[in-house]
This record gives sequence, C-alpha cells and structure tokens, in this order.
Amino acid sequence: MAEDKLPSRSENFAEWYNQLVLKAELADYAPVRGCMVVRPYGWTLWENMQAGLDRRFKETGHVNAAFPTLIPLSFFEKEKEHVEGFSPELAVVTHGGGEKLEEPLAVRPTSETIIGYMYSKWIKSWRDLPVLINQWGSVLRWELRTKLFLRTAEFYWQEGHTAHVSSEEALEETYRMLDVYADFAINDVAIPVIKGVKSETEKFAGAQMSTSIEAMMGDKRALQAGTSHFFGQNFAKAFEIQYLDQNNTLQYCHTTSWGLSTRMIGAMIMVHGDDQGLVMPPKLAPIQAVIVPIFKTDEEKQNVMQVADKVFTELKSAGIRIKLDDREEVTPGFKYNDWEMRGVPLRIEVGPRDVEKGSVALARRDILGREGKTFVPQAGLAQAVSQLLSEIQDALLKRATEFRDSNIHDPKDYEEFKQVVTDGWAFSWWCGSKECEAKVKEDTKATTRVIPFDQPDGEGQCIVCGEKAEKKVYFARAY
Amino acid sequence: MAEDKLPSRSENFAEWYNQLVLKAELADYAPVRGCMVVRPYGWTLWENMQAGLDRRFKETGHVNAAFPTLIPLSFFEKEKEHVEGFSPELAVVTHGGGEKLEEPLAVRPTSETIIGYMYSKWIKSWRDLPVLINQWGSVLRWELRTKLFLRTAEFYWQEGHTAHVSSEEALEETYRMLDVYADFAINDVAIPVIKGVKSETEKFAGAQMSTSIEAMMGDKRALQAGTSHFFGQNFAKAFEIQYLDQNNTLQYCHTTSWGLSTRMIGAMIMVHGDDQGLVMPPKLAPIQAVIVPIFKTDEEKQNVMQVADKVFTELKSAGIRIKLDDREEVTPGFKYNDWEMRGVPLRIEVGPRDVEKGSVALARRDILGREGKTFVPQAGLAQAVSQLLSEIQDALLKRATEFRDSNIHDPKDYEEFKQVVTDGWAFSWWCGSKECEAKVKEDTKATTRVIPFDQPDGEGQCIVCGEKAEKKVYFARAY
Repeated sequence: MAEDKLPSRSENFAEWYNQLVLKAELADYAPVRGCMVVRPYGWTLWENMQAGLDRRFKETGHVNAAFPTLIPLSFFEKEKEHVEGFSPELAVVTHGGGEKLEEPLAVRPTSETIIGYMYSKWIKSWRDLPVLINQWGSVLRWELRTKLFLRTAEFYWQEGHTAHVSSEEALEETYRMLDVYADFAINDVAIPVIKGVKSETEKFAGAQMSTSIEAMMGDKRALQAGTSHFFGQNFAKAFEIQYLDQNNTLQYCHTTSWGLSTRMIGAMIMVHGDDQGLVMPPKLAPIQAVIVPIFKTDEEKQNVMQVADKVFTELKSAGIRIKLDDREEVTPGFKYNDWEMRGVPLRIEVGPRDVEKGSVALARRDILGREGKTFVPQAGLAQAVSQLLSEIQDALLKRATEFRDSNIHDPKDYEEFKQVVTDGWAFSWWCGSKECEAKVKEDTKATTRVIPFDQPDGEGQCIVCGEKAEKKVYFARAY
Repeated sequence: MAEDKLPSRSENFAEWYNQLVLKAELADYAPVRGCMVVRPYGWTLWENMQAGLDRRFKETGHVNAAFPTLIPLSFFEKEKEHVEGFSPELAVVTHGGGEKLEEPLAVRPTSETIIGYMYSKWIKSWRDLPVLINQWGSVLRWELRTKLFLRTAEFYWQEGHTAHVSSEEALEETYRMLDVYADFAINDVAIPVIKGVKSETEKFAGAQMSTSIEAMMGDKRALQAGTSHFFGQNFAKAFEIQYLDQNNTLQYCHTTSWGLSTRMIGAMIMVHGDDQGLVMPPKLAPIQAVIVPIFKTDEEKQNVMQVADKVFTELKSAGIRIKLDDREEVTPGFKYNDWEMRGVPLRIEVGPRDVEKGSVALARRDILGREGKTFVPQAGLAQAVSQLLSEIQDALLKRATEFRDSNIHDPKDYEEFKQVVTDGWAFSWWCGSKECEAKVKEDTKATTRVIPFDQPDGEGQCIVCGEKAEKKVYFARAY
C-alpha cells in the first residue's frame, strides 16, 4: 500500500530515487551488505529489457551460453591491466565442502578470463571463427556504497564475448554492438544516448579501446548506460586464443566484449520519473494499462464490472499487458495514485456514465491531469490504446531529448566551463592529456564521459590548457 | 568436426553419455573442479526448456524475481535439518574487497533461507498472500565427482518459493507444481514420469514432505527429474514469516519450494539417445530440421541451392527452427552423421532428382534408414514438416513409455527382488520402515524412488520383512 508521499524530485533527487525504488517494489536491500533483491515488478521490467536485447543479439548472429560463477584467482594475473582493475573488488571463496581450497576462487566480476580460457580450448581453425557468444547472469564487484540498480556489489547484466580472425572484424563487432545498445536505449527505453569512445583514464581494464553510450539523468548527471570493448590481441595473448589461418599458420584472435546491466533500470527511473513516481516507457512496462472501475451502488458495480471485464479480455487478447484493479478495500483515487507511482503508462477509467455512453476515459501517465485525458468509444478500444501507447513512447523520447539538449553547453572559457558542469554537461575541445582530465576532475568532480563519433569539423583549443585540440568531448559529473 | 565414433550405448552407457555430451558440444568441463560450461547448443536447449516451464509458471500465477547469490552462513543455522543437509556442501566466501569478512558468506546451494528472510520483511497481512515467486539461476553444492548435467558443483535451475495462509493452500501448490513438472516432462521432453512422495530418508532437508517426478533412463536406472516440497511452518518459524489474518491475529505462513534443473538435459539424452548420438524431442530441439543439399556439378549446385534456399525461407517463416547446411568442405554423408549425432529430429535432403520431381526427401532421426524416409512434394512442405515433427514427438514418448513399462517388475519375493533391481525397477509393497529401506540399499544399491500417488487397492506384505504394508513403492538404482 502506497500512502506516504515521496520526497520532491526537484528538491531531493537522491532521496526521491531511493524511496521510489523501494516504494514501487522494484528492488530491496539484501541482508548481505552491498547486495540487492530485485522484486517481481523490477524483474519483470528487466525481463522485458532482456527480451528486447536478446532479440537484437540473435538477429546479429549471437548465441547464449553459460560459464561458471567461480574463477581461479590465478586467471586474473594473466592480463596485467585487468588484474590491477579487478583485484581490489573481488569476493574470494577460500573453502569448499568443509575444506580449505588449494587455490582460492573469485566470484566472477566479469568473465573475460574464464571465457578466454575456454575459447583457447575450442578455437582451432579459421573455420571456427567468429565465435559470437553472450551470457546472461550476475557478477560481483565488492562495493559497500549501495545505490539500488546503480551501484551494488552484485548486479545483473549480459556480457558478450567474441573472437575474430582480424582486427577489422573485431572493431566492426565492437561498433555493431554499441549500435545495438544505442538502438535499444533510444527505441525501447526512450533514452537518447551519445555514442563514442572513452578516454584512456575511463576505459575498461585490459581494453585497447572502450566505447560507450552515455545518457543524461533527470538531475543532469551522466550515466554510462552500456559499453563495448575492443581488446585487440591482449586477451588472446594472455590466454593463447589461437587459430590456424587459411595458410595453416598459427594466429592470435582479436576479441571484444560488451555489457549492459540493470543500471539501465536506474537510468529509466531517473530520466522519465517525476514527483508522482515512476514513468515507464510502454515498450518495457510490466503493466501497460490498468483498468480502474468506478461505482457506488451495487447496480452500478454490476454494470461497470461487466464493461471492465470486457475491456480487460479484449485488450489482453490484443497482446496489451493489462491489469484490472478490482480491489474493493481502497478507493479509485487511491488506485490512481498507486498506479501513477508505479509508472503504468495508461489508466483506463470505467464509471457509470461510461457504461451509458459506451465510452471509457484514458489518462496518460506522462501528461497528468485534464490535459492528458481523453474519452474514447469502447468499440475499437484495443487499437486506440495501442496507438496511444505508441504516442506515449515517442513523447517520452522527445521530452528526454529536449531536456538533454537544453542542458548541454559549449562554454567559452574554463571559468564558464567550471560553472556549467555544476548543473549540466559541457561539450568542449580537449587536448587529450590526462593532466587536463585530472585537473577538471579535481576542480569540478566532472570527468570526460565520451568522445563522440560525431565531431565538428576542424580543430580547436583545449578548454583547460588552451593547447591545440583535435576532438571535442563531453564533460559531466557522473553516476 | 565429428569423425570419431561414439562408444556403443548398450555396451558402455556411461562412456557413451560422457563422450556424447562433449562431442555434440552441449557442455564442457570448466577449469574449476566440479563445474561445467554449458555451450551454446546445450544452452539453447535449456532456453527452450526454460520457455516451456516459464510459460506454465506464469499461467499458474507465478512471477520471477532475483535474490542474491551470497547468503550469510548464519542463515543456514536457523532450520535444524536444513543446516545438516547443506553445510557439508557449501562454498564459502571469506574475503571481499581485499579484507577478511566479519561473517563468512555461502554461495547459495538453494535459496529457502534468504528468500524466507525477505518474505518475513515483505509479508504483513493476509492480503499479501499468497506470494508466488520463482527464480532462474544457478546454485552451488560442493561436489567433485562430476558428470556433466547430472552431477556438477554448480548447476542451473529454477527454484520456486511460495507462502500461503493455510496448510491446505500450500499443499495444493506443492501438488500443482508437481503436475506442472509432469506435464512439461511428458509433453515437452517426451519422458514419461511417475508422480509421488519421497520417503523420509530421501526427502529434502527441512521439508515436511517432498514430492517428485521419477523417470527411467536408457540404462534402466532412475532419475529424479523435478521436486516439489511442502515445508508446513518449518521455514516460517525459522525466519518469522508471519501475517495478520482477517481477525487481526498473527499467524505463521505455510511455505513450499520446487525446483527443476539442467539434469533434465541429462535425462533427455539418456532416455532418447542411441548409438548414433542424441535424439532431441522436436518441441525442444534447437534445430528442428536441417536441410542437406546434394550435388556434383556446378549446374546441379545452382538448381539444388535454389530449391534449398526456397525451402529454408518457407520453413523459417512458418516458425520451424531450421538450418541449411551449406558447408562445401564436407560431404553429404558426413553431414548426415554429424546432424544425427546432434539429434536434429528431421533431415531434409534436396538433390538433383528432387529438383526435377518437385519433391524433397525427409529422414527421421528417431527411425534411421529407409524405414524413416519419405519423399514429399515441395508444395505444402511446411505443413508436412510440422505434422511429421509432431508425430516424432509422440513416437518418442510412446517408445520411452513402452521401454519403461517393460522394465518395471513386480517380484514375488526378496530373492527375485534383488535380481530384478540389478537391471530394472521393482514396484513392491513396503512397510515404510527405514530399516527395510537401508537393507535394500546395502544389498542392492537400490533406493526407494517414490511412493506413487497412484496405488493399488488394499494392502500387502513388505517385500523385505514380510510385515503389513499399506503402500507400494518403486525401488531402483538411481543417478
């Protein structure tokens, strides 16, 4: 039951987020520090995200498999940067079956190493390539500052791992999967994202190049919403992933990996939510429309419920994820608030006057109040609802895009830059040096988010040091 | 490439199984002792099993969620029998983020404890009940004698956990989910199963009653293919899962759990496979039909490939999981063997004479050679193929049922009983005592598999001690 009021989103974004996740029953804190429980409403949302991604993975030729949760610690030592990046975050199994293990095992923080090991066994010839495997599961990176969906020790994700004959092919794959992520974010989650390359400082431990999609949250902070890494031959050399080419010569493979996690749920909440609660994009919403019957007398009840049942059956058979809220212990007003808080895109009200008129009222979650309300005939309702859901999906993307674009700035000097990144993003020339990146971070807490593929012509002067700069980059404070 | 011959199934069932799993690329051994990698062909099979089960779970009102992989060790202490059953099998995390943990954490061997803990937080009132949650994932039980799919330290499964207001309701749920498992086993996996209750010795650690579905493998050993447990208030009391009833009185819930794992893949292999390799039931097969083009000259190739492509497109758009094997470096005969080994239910041959005649040849995997071969017109092929796949599905179930029934015996005395269980099952009266159960195990290695719901009228004499017996039970050697 949802009766306590949420904190205001504009006044206390962080608290609004934390309480909303709990109140909407998306997730909960686990008894193990740093871990979360994803509750059915949140998991159904994730299942819908999984379906959207998995379809795209399979359309681009990938298959799923499952690799072990436990990885020998020694595997991490094989790639120098990888071990430096992940060792401090490992959870380590030292005992099994009542005995101390000869070699400790890590709960996987990511699976490049164990998958690399298996690939070295499986791949023999150029005929075995490319290998295009994805895995759905969870990983664990020791982390005590928990923020549900955004930062937890254990989180849910998919990780794709591919091996190729050439650098070109592996690069193509890296970009292809970034495109898949961008397509999913934009068209399913209704979040506009910027595609580009991470700086050396921000890239994945062990990658030659990391690419990412970056999104702006409702508080104007940035969130890395998906990453696709090009490893060159780093992991192939560390794990001896080799193949015989067409001239019978032994060659190292070129590999990639790419991942997208339940962070995307956090992004969805922070981009679309408002003071009333969640706003779910129709394509992902566990419940796309909820029917609320309204009546006072028994006679009204009978008539109203007859129509409500009919509408339910019709919309369900049209493939709409529909719920009929027939609770009698709470008022319609309570139900409105409850489902608004849970972000159901569309409310369908059926009252005695609707029964008379052969109509229903449709109320949009994204436009509250009268402005978002229409009265439509019961006849042909499934089509009207589908149409409206599609409009809502588009409207969410449009609103998020306008919000983002109006909060990206092009400051004229470093003074203005420092101002801008306190409440927005800066898109500025950067010389590429780690020193300038570090200075920005120290001065403003902002980091380089992504060097977009989409660049202006010519060159400019670094916003920090004034030296020649070939690329513009997005700077922002990030989650 | 699959050129080495498999061991004979009848001569060396165990070796036939081990080699087949590797050769068909269903799974592989992981570098961590006791663990397995499920390769894409095996995982796609599991995805098809998951889809069949998940649909049934949702139709019976269940939702999915995700609980943490790590569980505080102290949680296991809360239910006396549970801790005795699982403590010896735990993998224990003692270090996280470079430091020794205050309390060690177990990698979950099953999730009754952590889910019970969360239920105690979530459930307040009778209105919150029933809670019907399922989780897909993996669990870990320390185990060094690995047999892929049948016995590995980490394995994949689903575990349902439900909480109810009454014992009756929880019992109903226990039986309902056993029915779901039986329906899935029989109709999707084409394995006949017997539903019943486990003996006290064989039940789950912490359950008041365990029920299971039991199946006979191709070597006549038994395999427990799914279990559904009734806990009464055992876990509710251990974890204080309580609700306020309609009279505002605090009551303990009644809970259940039920699970089915990747063991079912092992069962599928051992029930349907033959000397040539796997035989997949069409409903689950990752590839339901494979097209093998046959040609010698370039002109033949052109004509044949045109028909093969057309057939591929037509069957694919009819929703059949179809593959066109257009490899040129191997012969058609090699392809026949390869796809037979991988258990594809149907082979579609297209050669020059088929092009002329407007026909194709269909070869059934379950009936090898001429007997299983038919020639059908290309026109209307999708329907013919669907029809034949459905016939194959039925034929597999029929064959497995006949095999099972002809290997269940009703021995007249204990001497015959001991003989019978060396190469089959005994269905015999049993007094219910642990002593008789233990004697059978010592004398024959056979155990009580299940006390079937379906019982003959009246009573009899225990096959072991001759005392009065109220129930008949299946005895067999088991995996």
